[in-house]
Amino acid sequence: MNGVGADEVIVETPDHDATMSDLSDFQIQEVITAYKQRYHDLTKDKRFKYILIFKNHGEKAGASQTHPHSQLIATPIVPRRIMEEVTAATRHYEATGGSCIWCDIVETEQEEEKRVVSENDLFIAISPYAARFPFETWILPKAHEMAFEDITDEERAPFARILKDVLGRLRGILDDPPFNYYIHTAPTDRKETKYHWHLEIIPRLTETAGFERGTGFYINPVMPEDAAAILRDGGPKAKA
Amino acid sequence: MNGVGADEVIVETPDHDATMSDLSDFQIQEVITAYKQRYHDLTKDKRFKYILIFKNHGEKAGASQTHPHSQLIATPIVPRRIMEEVTAATRHYEATGGSCIWCDIVETEQEEEKRVVSENDLFIAISPYAARFPFETWILPKAHEMAFEDITDEERAPFARILKDVLGRLRGILDDPPFNYYIHTAPTDRKETKYHWHLEIIPRLTETAGFERGTGFYINPVMPEDAAAILRDGGPKAKA
Repeated sequence: MNGVGADEVIVETPDHDATMSDLSDFQIQEVITAYKQRYHDLTKDKRFKYILIFKNHGEKAGASQTHPHSQLIATPIVPRRIMEEVTAATRHYEATGGSCIWCDIVETEQEEEKRVVSENDLFIAISPYAARFPFETWILPKAHEMAFEDITDEERAPFARILKDVLGRLRGILDDPPFNYYIHTAPTDRKETKYHWHLEIIPRLTETAGFERGTGFYINPVMPEDAAAILRDGGPKAKA
Repeated sequence: MNGVGADEVIVETPDHDATMSDLSDFQIQEVITAYKQRYHDLTKDKRFKYILIFKNHGEKAGASQTHPHSQLIATPIVPRRIMEEVTAATRHYEATGGSCIWCDIVETEQEEEKRVVSENDLFIAISPYAARFPFETWILPKAHEMAFEDITDEERAPFARILKDVLGRLRGILDDPPFNYYIHTAPTDRKETKYHWHLEIIPRLTETAGFERGTGFYINPVMPEDAAAILRDGGPKAKA
């Protein structure tokens, strides 16, 4: 492994005090377009095996700048979290005779409904079944799509809408919590056709401590069904 | 997997305002004895596959009580971090024709010296070569010992001394930082004879953010050699 990489900041708006959920649908589409363009440009460098696009909001989430921004880091190896997902997806594919694990999650969550936070024609936002963090939320394309960088013009508007919607719910209901999000997509070599891209949002409401550090297990005091109900139905009153 | 487990709090001192590095050598030996006794008692329940002893100090490290305490959680499965270490140790054992990876680390660090924080006859404290966090410090028995619960009366005093010494250095030099420590030991079935127990201390000086969450990789702005020099030689002046 060599030490090559890329590290970029994507400025989301000229307005220093805005948050992403304040932006118009069009502005968020423009941010997504910027993500895609930077992704395509950087994949020309074959030394980059993976490109992670992510956002840190709030000091507790590791944001060192207050101006609204996202970040991109290209790495010369595929990250371990991605390899873990690829391994799990491959095992599921083999065990089921050819099913995508994320397609199966989308189908199950649509049937069961109770962990769905928001939905439109092309995308779904869910509280994952084994959420590691309170109010962890994933956004997935409903169709099997390996890579974020293939997002079409037709998909861009509904993706922007659901992202703004979910971030707005988190902000309104949880009082502008610090959060991280990141886009998990296939490695740049595009060989992992069983991968299904998605965006994971992690609000930073609790501290990980010695147990999490020592075990790699997570303690989550909020049931994903409760988190989804609160985010879906508009606030703690929905629980009563 | 069933949901069985145990969760205990070990109160380290009657003095609410003390920190562990304020305690006498004897008091720390007593804490270690309590760890060992609780470990032995809980291993009688064969449903517990792993017992993690850990400590959270400071709110940012997830401590919900300010009174000095450690914790213990018994789990019905072996944690993933332990399985990762077992896998890596087994690979090293096979690749080297029978060497313990932690014994090799102890030997290398004693030879190279530059990552050694503190040392006595039986234990060594080091900044690990690929430290994930600034001032991450590990304490290991120099002899090959699989399991913490086998600690002898002869080893208890030098283990207490080096633990107090390292925590005192971190506290004095880094202004009482929040930290976690945890004891990594072999699973309760004692079949992992290639395991070598150790204690890992993680000061909480930086926030993990979207990159760490998205990749499982860590960004550490402090070289372990610098961290060790600062902790060993008594403060930032040592860097000048």
